[in-house]
Amino acid sequence: MKISPSPFAPDTFPDLLPVGGVRAATASRGFYATQSDETRDDVFLFEFVDGTTCAGVFTKSATASADVLWCRKALIEGHGKAKALIANSGNSNAFTGPKGAMKNEATLAALTAQLNIPKPACFLAATGVIGEPLPDPNYIGAFVPTLSARLGPPNWEACARAFMTTDTYPKGSSAKCKVGDATVHITGIAKGSGMIAPNMATMLAYIFTDAAIAPAVLDHLLKNIADVSFNAISVDGDTSTSDTLMIFATGESGAPQITEPDDQRLEAFNAALKSLCLELAHQIVKDGEGATKFIEIMVEGAPTDGEAKIIAASIANSPLVKTALAAGDANWGRVVMAAGKAGVDFDQSKLNIWFEDHQVAENGARADSYDEDAASAVCKGDMISIRVNIGDGLGQASVYTCDLTHAYVDINGAYRT
Amino acid sequence: MKISPSPFAPDTFPDLLPVGGVRAATASRGFYATQSDETRDDVFLFEFVDGTTCAGVFTKSATASADVLWCRKALIEGHGKAKALIANSGNSNAFTGPKGAMKNEATLAALTAQLNIPKPACFLAATGVIGEPLPDPNYIGAFVPTLSARLGPPNWEACARAFMTTDTYPKGSSAKCKVGDATVHITGIAKGSGMIAPNMATMLAYIFTDAAIAPAVLDHLLKNIADVSFNAISVDGDTSTSDTLMIFATGESGAPQITEPDDQRLEAFNAALKSLCLELAHQIVKDGEGATKFIEIMVEGAPTDGEAKIIAASIANSPLVKTALAAGDANWGRVVMAAGKAGVDFDQSKLNIWFEDHQVAENGARADSYDEDAASAVCKGDMISIRVNIGDGLGQASVYTCDLTHAYVDINGAYRT
Repeated sequence: MKISPSPFAPDTFPDLLPVGGVRAATASRGFYATQSDETRDDVFLFEFVDGTTCAGVFTKSATASADVLWCRKALIEGHGKAKALIANSGNSNAFTGPKGAMKNEATLAALTAQLNIPKPACFLAATGVIGEPLPDPNYIGAFVPTLSARLGPPNWEACARAFMTTDTYPKGSSAKCKVGDATVHITGIAKGSGMIAPNMATMLAYIFTDAAIAPAVLDHLLKNIADVSFNAISVDGDTSTSDTLMIFATGESGAPQITEPDDQRLEAFNAALKSLCLELAHQIVKDGEGATKFIEIMVEGAPTDGEAKIIAASIANSPLVKTALAAGDANWGRVVMAAGKAGVDFDQSKLNIWFEDHQVAENGARADSYDEDAASAVCKGDMISIRVNIGDGLGQASVYTCDLTHAYVDINGAYRT
Repeated sequence: MKISPSPFAPDTFPDLLPVGGVRAATASRGFYATQSDETRDDVFLFEFVDGTTCAGVFTKSATASADVLWCRKALIEGHGKAKALIANSGNSNAFTGPKGAMKNEATLAALTAQLNIPKPACFLAATGVIGEPLPDPNYIGAFVPTLSARLGPPNWEACARAFMTTDTYPKGSSAKCKVGDATVHITGIAKGSGMIAPNMATMLAYIFTDAAIAPAVLDHLLKNIADVSFNAISVDGDTSTSDTLMIFATGESGAPQITEPDDQRLEAFNAALKSLCLELAHQIVKDGEGATKFIEIMVEGAPTDGEAKIIAASIANSPLVKTALAAGDANWGRVVMAAGKAGVDFDQSKLNIWFEDHQVAENGARADSYDEDAASAVCKGDMISIRVNIGDGLGQASVYTCDLTHAYVDINGAYRT
């Protein structure tokens, strides 16, 4: 089946900033050639200048893919040094047993030989069908020379397209900021549209910067930012086996090397990285399978930020909330239901809910000022903000999601992820 | 919109057994008259003989309805004695603030006056739209004399129809067994089709028996059985504000009074009650909104039964699993994904999965004997059993669910629950 483009698909791919010390190549390995008459790029290779540092956040799934297992190991063994990243779409190499590990070994052997680099500096990713072994273990490895020959300044759009699966548009964002006196550049690309849950599902996001930052500091920044960006989005509550967010810092900007997480010179970088991650996360939600609306669920007044996020996720993941919003129905009672079922205890007589600025629930009952037409008008829009206050503290969190439509059912009945 | 009947809807309502000591009446309060030209019964009243004991299990929602809050209180204050039960469909009296409590007080005043019974022996329930106050607090109370005048031997089908909301067929089941030398009868009715989650969502189920069992013993039996029946079903992972499962025991069979939970004479009763609850729970899943398939997810080999249930529920609630099965697609990789995301740690190299008798995953990879046609044949059926073994113990659990279809999206976009 043909998937219709998201109504949020931009007309053109954004102009992304170059990042010193990064080369890239894309090519077609033919993963999609067998499924349709379309030939498209489905593999990318990145090569980094010597001295590049990195950090990563990965799926919490107990059935994590072979590639995720390797990346976790490489980060530890290589102490956060990166030289190469290779990823393919069309096959996730997840739940492929010993064959999955063999594919990784063959790919790593090809990368280390071709680029003359240490094994733990090579990072791998794959997204697509789960449980299908590749035709042979060297299927990607044998393709490394072809990719390597094409390495050059990144064509970000081509890279962002190469790892798309059910995505209907390529995703990318850039930012720049000062670290010390130097201007540093940050560019990220991401893919993901289904299986998106608070724990980062079928989502791959790679961020490249020419800042000079020690691996432990990158790790610290990335984990905190992931919590409020990629880990705060949900399309369907499902979590993939392959989710990966990585950052690579080449140091080519000439900015001072940052080795401590509390270094004040990181402040602008942290803010820029956070806003870039949030932008990429929003792009993923807006390309949610079948999505026609972008929905922000903001919960405040919880005892802790963590509890606020649990309630926000419960609302964002509720199929009843998502189908009502798909239909433009101001069914605020379902927001009450979804807040109540979250497993966080609260006093419902202190519960207040707003659809945009219109208060729908007030101190445990329908607001006196409730106006069905005003609430409906909010729900008929394509950008909806719902704010919930449980009146029990200062904890707050936002979770971003989309509506649940016929198209979601169609895509996921027809597409073999 | 008109909701199409479930393909599992039986041609006729089952012949249910009479239960001594129980009288009932149904009538139309007009909740549905304003929404369509249909007039249907939407209230029932049950009256129990003196000496009737009871127990209940209720929603864990923090936004539980006023009726649920009252029932919990009444069980404590009245020490598990029951004289009356009144329920309406069309309005849930949930999140109605002080107005909800006023409706309860007015209803209770009418019941105690009309039937000359103590207040804590009266149980209340309501199901339907959340957050809409009734036209006046005495809306149900004023109707008690009408209902009371109609009390007589229960017409089980009429009762089961009176509390339907998006249900497409009335649900009921009976069983009989021996307690000591006496034959006791058990009859249950249930409603529910959306917001059905492991914690009993928009589900009301009432069970009546002429056994003589002390309240504490009923409570013990009911809680254990709810865990493997009503709390082991899921339509969409949503949990309602009004879920209620209650049992009433009139003692009219002449069976010996049971006062200890470990009384051996309870064995047959416990088995009969369990099988009746499972049957009612299955009827609810089969009437799941938009359901075309009944799916059993059985997880075994977990360290504990509790962990098995968490994994089974994760699979049963996965929209990606449910949309694949709706399309008859043998997408077993999504079962791997949903097992992995459950939050229970396990060794994926010990994971085995069967679709009916056909093994699809074997020790962490696709089974060597995997046959796409055989797996597809299972998924094209309307009764699907999926068995997952994580190879780490003796814990096991089953969760029952249905597929996710266009009709679910339609019903929940159009219907204001």
